[in-house]
Amino acid sequence: MKLGEIAEIINGRIEGDRDIDITGPGKIESAEAHQITFLANPRYEKYFSDTKAGCVIVSEDFNPKNPSVKISVIRVKDPYSSFLRLIEIFEVNDDEMESGISDKSDIHSDTVIGENVYAGSNVCIQKGCNIGNSTKIYPNTFIGRNSVIGKNCKIHPNVTIYKNTEIGDNVIIHSGTVIGSDGFGFAKQGDSSYKKIPQTGKVVIENDVEIGSNTSIDRATIGETRICRGVKLDNQIQIAHNVVIGEDTVIAAQVGIAGSTKIGKRCMIGGQSGLVGHIELCDDVIIGAAVGVSKSIMEPGIYTGYRVRPYREDLKTEARIKNLDKLEERLKKLETSGK
Amino acid sequence: MKLGEIAEIINGRIEGDRDIDITGPGKIESAEAHQITFLANPRYEKYFSDTKAGCVIVSEDFNPKNPSVKISVIRVKDPYSSFLRLIEIFEVNDDEMESGISDKSDIHSDTVIGENVYAGSNVCIQKGCNIGNSTKIYPNTFIGRNSVIGKNCKIHPNVTIYKNTEIGDNVIIHSGTVIGSDGFGFAKQGDSSYKKIPQTGKVVIENDVEIGSNTSIDRATIGETRICRGVKLDNQIQIAHNVVIGEDTVIAAQVGIAGSTKIGKRCMIGGQSGLVGHIELCDDVIIGAAVGVSKSIMEPGIYTGYRVRPYREDLKTEARIKNLDKLEERLKKLETSGK
Amino acid sequence: MKLGEIAEIINGRIEGDRDIDITGPGKIESAEAHQITFLANPRYEKYFSDTKAGCVIVSEDFNPKNPSVKISVIRVKDPYSSFLRLIEIFEVNDDEMESGISDKSDIHSDTVIGENVYAGSNVCIQKGCNIGNSTKIYPNTFIGRNSVIGKNCKIHPNVTIYKNTEIGDNVIIHSGTVIGSDGFGFAKQGDSSYKKIPQTGKVVIENDVEIGSNTSIDRATIGETRICRGVKLDNQIQIAHNVVIGEDTVIAAQVGIAGSTKIGKRCMIGGQSGLVGHIELCDDVIIGAAVGVSKSIMEPGIYTGYRVRPYREDLKTEARIKNLDKLEERLKKLETSGK
Repeated sequence: MKLGEIAEIINGRIEGDRDIDITGPGKIESAEAHQITFLANPRYEKYFSDTKAGCVIVSEDFNPKNPSVKISVIRVKDPYSSFLRLIEIFEVNDDEMESGISDKSDIHSDTVIGENVYAGSNVCIQKGCNIGNSTKIYPNTFIGRNSVIGKNCKIHPNVTIYKNTEIGDNVIIHSGTVIGSDGFGFAKQGDSSYKKIPQTGKVVIENDVEIGSNTSIDRATIGETRICRGVKLDNQIQIAHNVVIGEDTVIAAQVGIAGSTKIGKRCMIGGQSGLVGHIELCDDVIIGAAVGVSKSIMEPGIYTGYRVRPYREDLKTEARIKNLDKLEERLKKLETSGK
Repeated sequence: MKLGEIAEIINGRIEGDRDIDITGPGKIESAEAHQITFLANPRYEKYFSDTKAGCVIVSEDFNPKNPSVKISVIRVKDPYSSFLRLIEIFEVNDDEMESGISDKSDIHSDTVIGENVYAGSNVCIQKGCNIGNSTKIYPNTFIGRNSVIGKNCKIHPNVTIYKNTEIGDNVIIHSGTVIGSDGFGFAKQGDSSYKKIPQTGKVVIENDVEIGSNTSIDRATIGETRICRGVKLDNQIQIAHNVVIGEDTVIAAQVGIAGSTKIGKRCMIGGQSGLVGHIELCDDVIIGAAVGVSKSIMEPGIYTGYRVRPYREDLKTEARIKNLDKLEERLKKLETSGK
Repeated sequence: MKLGEIAEIINGRIEGDRDIDITGPGKIESAEAHQITFLANPRYEKYFSDTKAGCVIVSEDFNPKNPSVKISVIRVKDPYSSFLRLIEIFEVNDDEMESGISDKSDIHSDTVIGENVYAGSNVCIQKGCNIGNSTKIYPNTFIGRNSVIGKNCKIHPNVTIYKNTEIGDNVIIHSGTVIGSDGFGFAKQGDSSYKKIPQTGKVVIENDVEIGSNTSIDRATIGETRICRGVKLDNQIQIAHNVVIGEDTVIAAQVGIAGSTKIGKRCMIGGQSGLVGHIELCDDVIIGAAVGVSKSIMEPGIYTGYRVRPYREDLKTEARIKNLDKLEERLKKLETSGK
């Protein structure tokens, strides 16, 4: 894309060469001559004079410390937002390449495929599914029977979606993720062995959800496991049967949520935290990283610790543990003085 | 299935319409008219008068609080067991659909396939394998050479089974799981780099084992990694080389077990717990969630804590930490009174 | 392979039958007649008289306690090293079987495939890739467009490599692993929903790296996520966008590393540990298992604990917590004596 076109898209003013060819975005410290970068944070200004980028997006009032630097700039109101806009555009152009139904895919004749759907090689879609318009399904992904996938979704390679799953619009699912595997339910028998309790429910994923790689979401025993509108799940998250995750909640990598637990709206859960089964988190709860949540939390706020506590309380406890040596010294002093 | 047939299967007495068509099980609070549900726990009785289910399985002596409710019921001795029996039946009917060897699979001519085996599209089975009767292998699953899989197994889509793996009868493996990847073994060299120690052993999985999604079980360095009869593994579990897991042991999601550790029979390990390598757990040990087990445990019982302790001891320690502020106050009082 | 050939390879002296056929290595306690084993650790000497192995590699000066045992031995300087050498040789022979480009693979015409490359069935390689000589790509693996893979690599089944990934020589990647999935980046909107920040960077994996099964390595937002030469990653590790891992660093299973964190050379990180984002570890840092690292570490050494501390300090704190009951008793004694 010519720099002139880019300036028009982000509504900026060029100082430099309108005809430079830009192929994508880069970081100011490592961009190459065919890349565009930006400068918003003053901490990065030191890179301005040496960057090899073809152009730097700067704020309208930006003054380089070394005015002799010869580099094309585009001046805009908000360099960061303009830059984000650009990387979206380069990304979309890039993705136009995948289209059509591969003749190496295996799609059951009794399945409905919308318009403008992409299905790559070795994609397998079983009987009775319905795939919405403009959805992209990448190679080696499996979709089990009677599953419904909405419009504009992106299902990356090697994803597994078990039967009867319902997925909304604009959902992104990364590779290796498994949706709808059996919940972990067994009935103990008299001889200490276990008998499988069939898991006959399903998984429902609402609109605008993104799910990272190698995440597992189990189907419900009966009923449904539900991921509500706008939820963002990172990689390697485990979501057990009958869990419900509320709208716009964000969960970091390697979190585990046990069966039937319900999480409210706009919660944030830090990486590697674990929630036991059959508890509830109300809306707007923030859980730190590696926290063990073993009881319901019904007050918004920040919670941390191996055994979950309100953040301030946890900090105080931690400080007390750190000061145990001083406590002991004071005790010793008393003991000695008492003699 | 007609309600009349269902009543016969679970040996119950219908009060209502024998001709209702039931397509599957549902939860009492959300079931629809074509679903059957049950009532065992009195806590759920409040849903009885409003359920939209086609039928409720109740106990022989059940008396609705509101006798005017018009809904078909089936009376049985044990509603929960009868219901479990039904969901199994609906599940089996459902699974009859997959059968035969897909012409889009790639099965080596020098591999033995039993009777009534299902192999879906893009299934790849290498040379020298043996697949038992009535085993189902779902699309996009890979089975490496010289592996043996027993009868009646269910290997879900996108599973990877490396060469020389031995799997018994009635084993279920969920999607994304990897069996037989190399153990993590390297020899440090003089220049601080590492040299791979070839992992030439195998994985043996005995009868009646179920393994969740995205779990990893590494092959042994030499010898075998063994998952014994009846073990149930949840999702995203990591089992290192040469581990042995005893019969009827149950392990929850995201547990990690390091190399050569041996776990006894009938143990239960809570989610996100970790066991270091080269230790042993005797039979009937219960480990809580997120526990760090760094030494062998040779006494049955319950163990918890970031640094594993017997449960009661851990509780006491936890209480003492919680009361550190009071301890400090008492100390301050003594210091002041001593002046 | 005849025992005579083996003795030549490891430069040892046979006492016994040169013509025994050996098909692979075994453990001394469980090896069969067609397997070779070794004896280096005196703890295993008790198995010598009963082993069923075809041959035992022993040290030059080994004297069996029971001289009447009739078993072939090969005497060498260092039995363990000789044995490792042998299992490598058996492994290589074994792997010769996979070769050629399967006609069930789907490789874009505009991709460069080196000499002697293996690509199994259902392998999908998109446009613009470059696969180096003697690299093996196993069935059902996906490689996205414009990715470059070096020489002599082994990419196991069901691996996903997203577009623009760069992989060096002699890299091994195990099944279920995902390289280059989107980093977890979202911008919060006024209505509390999140907007995806496109992740346009890439993943670079240098020479001699090994990556276990079901591991996730996210692409950078801009720039790159980099795994340097000789790094060894175990199973189920999560590496977020823009992370850098230094040369010869070893990371055990289920570790999570958050965005933009930089790890030095020759570090070791124990299983299930977590590192927050935007921190740094200098060279030669050793982190224990299940450690929570929430700040940069700029001194080499060993660090442990739920809240990371230098190892010795952590041990002392732990001892103080264990002794809290005694502290309380001493306090009580003082209180009573003061009355």
